[in-house]
Amino acid sequence: MPARQTLNDLFIHELSDIYSAEKQLTKALPKMARAASNPDLVAAFESHLTETQGQVERIDQFVEAAGLKLKRVKCMAMEGLVEEGKEVIDEIEKGAVLDAALIGAAQKVEHYEIASYGTILTFAKQLGLTQALEPLKATMAEEKGADEKLSALAQKINVEAKSAK
Amino acid sequence: MPARQTLNDLFIHELSDIYSAEKQLTKALPKMARAASNPDLVAAFESHLTETQGQVERIDQFVEAAGLKLKRVKCMAMEGLVEEGKEVIDEIEKGAVLDAALIGAAQKVEHYEIASYGTILTFAKQLGLTQALEPLKATMAEEKGADEKLSALAQKINVEAKSAK
Repeated sequence: MPARQTLNDLFIHELSDIYSAEKQLTKALPKMARAASNPDLVAAFESHLTETQGQVERIDQFVEAAGLKLKRVKCMAMEGLVEEGKEVIDEIEKGAVLDAALIGAAQKVEHYEIASYGTILTFAKQLGLTQALEPLKATMAEEKGADEKLSALAQKINVEAKSAK
Repeated sequence: MPARQTLNDLFIHELSDIYSAEKQLTKALPKMARAASNPDLVAAFESHLTETQGQVERIDQFVEAAGLKLKRVKCMAMEGLVEEGKEVIDEIEKGAVLDAALIGAAQKVEHYEIASYGTILTFAKQLGLTQALEPLKATMAEEKGADEKLSALAQKINVEAKSAK
């Protein structure tokens, strides 16, 4: 793997990392949706799956349009976060407590992505990669929206989780 | 390891996880400070180390006051994020490009913590653990402040990183 020596190298590395993260997430979200009980939470995971698939396509499109080449990397952080989600599903009985735990796991995923896209956006601006800005901003807005939706759902689901046992 | 069956179990698990994360971070931040070149970034890592040590103490204090008992868990996500930071330090030559990469790595750490404390705070509120709320809110404000400081530093450091090569 070639060393990162320039800001452009950092941009490509970070974009390749989040590309891997999004791909992993498209496999994890259906499992999270199946594990959830609250219908609004199921719907939130399902609609974020559709968004995530669109985010992968957005990256494909501007990478191709700008003649960039992503590296084949596996995002280890997302692997760990997805693993944590699996642990939650394996360990906790289906119901409100599992739903509350799934929200926590999903919000860590969203925040990983918010941090990553934040960095990628500042790099893209600095590098003058104007055609990347709109798709990246659209994705960032979706990640923040998903996080806020989960926070709102937590308000209701935590009440159910508290009285579950 | 006992299963998580109640909202209280989730709270203890999540708090034990972030406790492990903060402890790992107190070991990583001095390395990040030594690897950084920009004096403001060095100072930011050093002052966040002091904050992080205070955050560990804050958890110790309210855990003791509330008669809670943390579990011995290792936060795997923070282990991955710290590993990513080490990779950056090993791979990139000291200078503005490394500084830009360190900021990216550090903001992922901050966002992990923001997501985790967000979940812990909502659990604590739901469980009526009032003595935990003020310390948790104080820590959350520090994590958000650290993230914002890094975003501001990135504005300047990315300009240097772009002209570095």
